[in-house]
Amino acid sequence: MRMAELSSRSGVPIPTIKYYLREGLLQPGTATAATRAEYGESHVRRLRLIRALLEIGELPVTAIQRIVGALDDDTVSLHELIGRAQYALGPHVTPLAGDQDWQAAAGEVDALISELGWQVTAGSPARALLSGALVALRRLDPARSGVSLDVYAETLGRLAAQEVATVDPVDPPSGETDRAAVVEAAVAGMVLYERVVIALRRLAQEDASAQRFGHAGAE
Amino acid sequence: MRMAELSSRSGVPIPTIKYYLREGLLQPGTATAATRAEYGESHVRRLRLIRALLEIGELPVTAIQRIVGALDDDTVSLHELIGRAQYALGPHVTPLAGDQDWQAAAGEVDALISELGWQVTAGSPARALLSGALVALRRLDPARSGVSLDVYAETLGRLAAQEVATVDPVDPPSGETDRAAVVEAAVAGMVLYERVVIALRRLAQEDASAQRFGHAGAE
Repeated sequence: MRMAELSSRSGVPIPTIKYYLREGLLQPGTATAATRAEYGESHVRRLRLIRALLEIGELPVTAIQRIVGALDDDTVSLHELIGRAQYALGPHVTPLAGDQDWQAAAGEVDALISELGWQVTAGSPARALLSGALVALRRLDPARSGVSLDVYAETLGRLAAQEVATVDPVDPPSGETDRAAVVEAAVAGMVLYERVVIALRRLAQEDASAQRFGHAGAE
Repeated sequence: MRMAELSSRSGVPIPTIKYYLREGLLQPGTATAATRAEYGESHVRRLRLIRALLEIGELPVTAIQRIVGALDDDTVSLHELIGRAQYALGPHVTPLAGDQDWQAAAGEVDALISELGWQVTAGSPARALLSGALVALRRLDPARSGVSLDVYAETLGRLAAQEVATVDPVDPPSGETDRAAVVEAAVAGMVLYERVVIALRRLAQEDASAQRFGHAGAE
């Protein structure tokens, strides 16, 4: 298809498509003349992925460039790709090396991960995010009320296992051409289901709060 | 305490504290002379909350202003406050009024919420976030593989009920002075535990991906 059709199929305006091509977010089409190129279904899918990461994932363009670079690199395994997508996601919390509260929280996170037997690299930014959230929570609420970390870990571990089980293997029988589709779906799922989780958690909280503190209807 | 001590207690530099005072994020101290003011524990706590919302919650200053304005307004109930904090949190997804996929997703979200019997206002931004994520997921993966929405809703509903149950009531016996502490802890918990959920989900996914796709150890 020509660029005009690619634009109408994907809902992305032509100047934006040209910008994505220049930035390397979108792979070039097949040149059919000096100023003409043909695009295919993989371009439609890639544009949808970019829009989803931008609008729903709220990822910056540089982060999307890094993810897309890994998607297009056949030597990057699916596991490594999921790791790279995670590194591209914020928020990025900087460890407070000399801080006692930070050291305590980081130690707690390490203990939790090893207790659960989770295989997580030492440099995973999710460790720092969790430690940072714990430091802030403990400072604001030294009595440590709230739901225990084990409950969260156990609940989310169960969800993650179910999620990863639904990802198709990249290898045969479907072959090379499907690699892009599978890894794109895996990355989109990781980012977008995180938003699903956040949205449902907020909706559930609104309901729980309404039931506990709200005064619904006439009394 | 004087501002210098407030700074060292909270870890926030004096120029930043002055900025927060000017922007109305931090309530003024008690004036003891023309250029001198006394600060108390409530100021230390408020500074910790602001830093947590900025650094771990990644909220923009304007969003924190709105939350803090509601915190300081005694006429705002805890339930309303939780709602306002949710509205301040991103990502903010704009509904695509004329889009068929959007209408289908929004209808699915409405059906899910009413099926669960959740009390959620019609304008809750979490509805749009969920709809937007579903539209993107369905376009990228028309076969609708993945874990069912019901599983997520059920899991997160259970977590939210446990979370809200740990929030203290604001009313007596503790009285007026404790309102700020309780509502601040509730808002911080909402924002910070969301980061805990995200971080643990990413850690759990890294592990699940390592187990399914990784090649751990020497082979």
